[in-house]
Amino acid sequence: MDSCHPAHPREVLVINVGDELLDGLRGNSHLVWLGEQLARRGLPVTRAVTVRDDASAIAREVGAAWGVYDVIVTTGGIGPTTDDCTREAVAAALGVGLTRTPHSESALRDRFQRIGRTVSDADLRQCRVPVGGAELRNPRGTAPGVWFSSEGRALVMLPGPGLELRPMFDEEVVPRLRDLGCACRGEAYVQVRTYGIGAAPLEALIRPVVPAELTLTFGTHTGIVDARISSGGSGATADDLCCVARLVRDAVGEDFICTGHACLASIVIEQLRSLEKSVSLAESCTGGLLADAFASVPGASKVFAGSAVCYSNDAKMNLLGVPESLIAQHGAVSAEAAAAMAFGTAEKFGSDYALSVTGFAGPDGGTDADPVGTVFLGYSSPTGVWSRRISVVGDRAQVRRRSVNTALDWMRRKLNRYRVEDLLHGS
Amino acid sequence: MDSCHPAHPREVLVINVGDELLDGLRGNSHLVWLGEQLARRGLPVTRAVTVRDDASAIAREVGAAWGVYDVIVTTGGIGPTTDDCTREAVAAALGVGLTRTPHSESALRDRFQRIGRTVSDADLRQCRVPVGGAELRNPRGTAPGVWFSSEGRALVMLPGPGLELRPMFDEEVVPRLRDLGCACRGEAYVQVRTYGIGAAPLEALIRPVVPAELTLTFGTHTGIVDARISSGGSGATADDLCCVARLVRDAVGEDFICTGHACLASIVIEQLRSLEKSVSLAESCTGGLLADAFASVPGASKVFAGSAVCYSNDAKMNLLGVPESLIAQHGAVSAEAAAAMAFGTAEKFGSDYALSVTGFAGPDGGTDADPVGTVFLGYSSPTGVWSRRISVVGDRAQVRRRSVNTALDWMRRKLNRYRVEDLLHGS
Repeated sequence: MDSCHPAHPREVLVINVGDELLDGLRGNSHLVWLGEQLARRGLPVTRAVTVRDDASAIAREVGAAWGVYDVIVTTGGIGPTTDDCTREAVAAALGVGLTRTPHSESALRDRFQRIGRTVSDADLRQCRVPVGGAELRNPRGTAPGVWFSSEGRALVMLPGPGLELRPMFDEEVVPRLRDLGCACRGEAYVQVRTYGIGAAPLEALIRPVVPAELTLTFGTHTGIVDARISSGGSGATADDLCCVARLVRDAVGEDFICTGHACLASIVIEQLRSLEKSVSLAESCTGGLLADAFASVPGASKVFAGSAVCYSNDAKMNLLGVPESLIAQHGAVSAEAAAAMAFGTAEKFGSDYALSVTGFAGPDGGTDADPVGTVFLGYSSPTGVWSRRISVVGDRAQVRRRSVNTALDWMRRKLNRYRVEDLLHGS
Repeated sequence: MDSCHPAHPREVLVINVGDELLDGLRGNSHLVWLGEQLARRGLPVTRAVTVRDDASAIAREVGAAWGVYDVIVTTGGIGPTTDDCTREAVAAALGVGLTRTPHSESALRDRFQRIGRTVSDADLRQCRVPVGGAELRNPRGTAPGVWFSSEGRALVMLPGPGLELRPMFDEEVVPRLRDLGCACRGEAYVQVRTYGIGAAPLEALIRPVVPAELTLTFGTHTGIVDARISSGGSGATADDLCCVARLVRDAVGEDFICTGHACLASIVIEQLRSLEKSVSLAESCTGGLLADAFASVPGASKVFAGSAVCYSNDAKMNLLGVPESLIAQHGAVSAEAAAAMAFGTAEKFGSDYALSVTGFAGPDGGTDADPVGTVFLGYSSPTGVWSRRISVVGDRAQVRRRSVNTALDWMRRKLNRYRVEDLLHGS
């Protein structure tokens, strides 16, 4: 049996170090990433603490947690500058000294020799680990991480830069957590991703097909609702969870997007790739955000031709050929304009499909009939042109982001139906 | 004297409640926003803790902190659903009961009557505050916040939705913190924003003009480096800080963007507005992200015509009129292509200025001479067309975001110089 849960629930603490996280200068993206990675491996984070670049604050946090938590992960403060004090603080809290690591030192000397830089004492400070600990290799930076383990418990110190932290966690930390019996080998949960249904109705719909001994949790973000199904100590295997996920998918029907973590744009790109078709966009209020959703997916260029971001009415006329009389009669925010934009951009870019968005994102604009939050979507395919009116609640940023997701989801549904008809009637 | 610091440094704790923050489902945007708001008012956050929707975990956190911290702010868990347990947990930790608040109850009944919904007991649960506390009005939602104060210390409970949290903090919490003598009336620091200089050289440059008794801290994000100057207990007034900020600005020179928190796109929009000129964009690797930077600024439509996001070579030729022979000779990622794209989009959109970006964002693509991270920028103005090659380190997302900022900063510098020449020679 490929068990997807540890023998007993583990207590996991993440300690993020950095003034910038508390002064509103930067979001804590490490916690988001680590939270998901740890949960997938059966180690959901119990609690997270953010502290300043202050040795006594870090030592206090680690001192209170060591022996209480099964896994402690720290991020940041292990570099060569004077405000990096996590190494010293953690060693003090553990009641041990710091020892030099010959392997990291020689790797650092090699690296600096290649770029013609001399090694200073400050640089060598980062090549130390608490006595009894082990270094975690960091080929992408100068500061090695730290693994410290005792009596089945582990403390891990990761570097601040995300480009170093993420591969170090994947390559150096996960295998050690598995060897310790903390992290599971498969996925600890199966996630079913949906769009177009709220969390409460989704729960009512799928609860009957999920065995009571499994744990069901929900997460929502910009219209997407995720249902996570985990064994919750029931002894269910990864295969068991996948079987349940299939039942959930069938219960959800057309609102089902995918199993896993794929974004809406990558789903649409995959649909287009399998059809060997291309798409272009025409955007007004979303102003490049819809294009960005496609462009963020590596390899998008195979199906994504581009987007005409037309903020002004002149641009809608000149670039997309939307007739001036149409805008005069119906307005630039109308079902007619959305359809004309979709049709126009498909023609300009020479793409098989096109998607368009025009609306009032606020704070200004809107009419009595179409207040701020009113958005029209247009869709052009080889078989016709459609438009659709949606109403979005929220501020400017929320209206824009929600419009992007609804447009992508609409295209996903249209392409799904197209594929089904294909299968029924032959292509 | 308008003092911009409290009598003694305050200890501030933020407790964010929510499973989704620990499971990697959502970033902690509340902490980013509150961190900045509190720091601006002289109350930098000392420490932040994130806990699950679990009454005993919340009570443990508040119980350990009450009496230790001057200000405690909780977010989330005060709504009507069964997993909302912050109210009960905090009251238990404070050792008091919960009492109903007639004002909130009648506001809730009014609200529900207007939308034709009946009021349940679960709905009324959220209209209670710990005995001795006061309700904070929430006209944008159903759950009132809580203010609890004793012996100069304050505990504040804010709702989870950002659209309710932010105005409640501004309108209801800040005035109360001021009355308590915790928050200062002016701004607690002056921020000087720069681009094009690293944090270390910036510090070396400005340290000589900043009096030693003031505190100087630095924050960096995607190429932007902020220097924050605060009184640090020196007794300096807001006016004193502004005088120092002017000296810093002069020392920084062309790398100075602004005093405050404005983004690069809003600076460029302001420059264009004062010149009464318009701009359009042509994007390849940034795929709509540059357009989004402009479109995110309210009122952008006055100067921002639009963007041609041209992912394919065909699109660059058809939409922007980039000659096929130019792409064949120099490639789509070249100084020549960038210049042709800028020129072409200015013509298509009929804008006075244009900015273009084409590059290798990775993970695939690139050549020996121009590896991944090589990006060409193009700039078209009424007086000519320029291009520029930059090298950006990082993954796909970082290359794209850094390219956007560097393009915006380039335009800012160009327009600044244009304005200076205007002033020297007359327009």
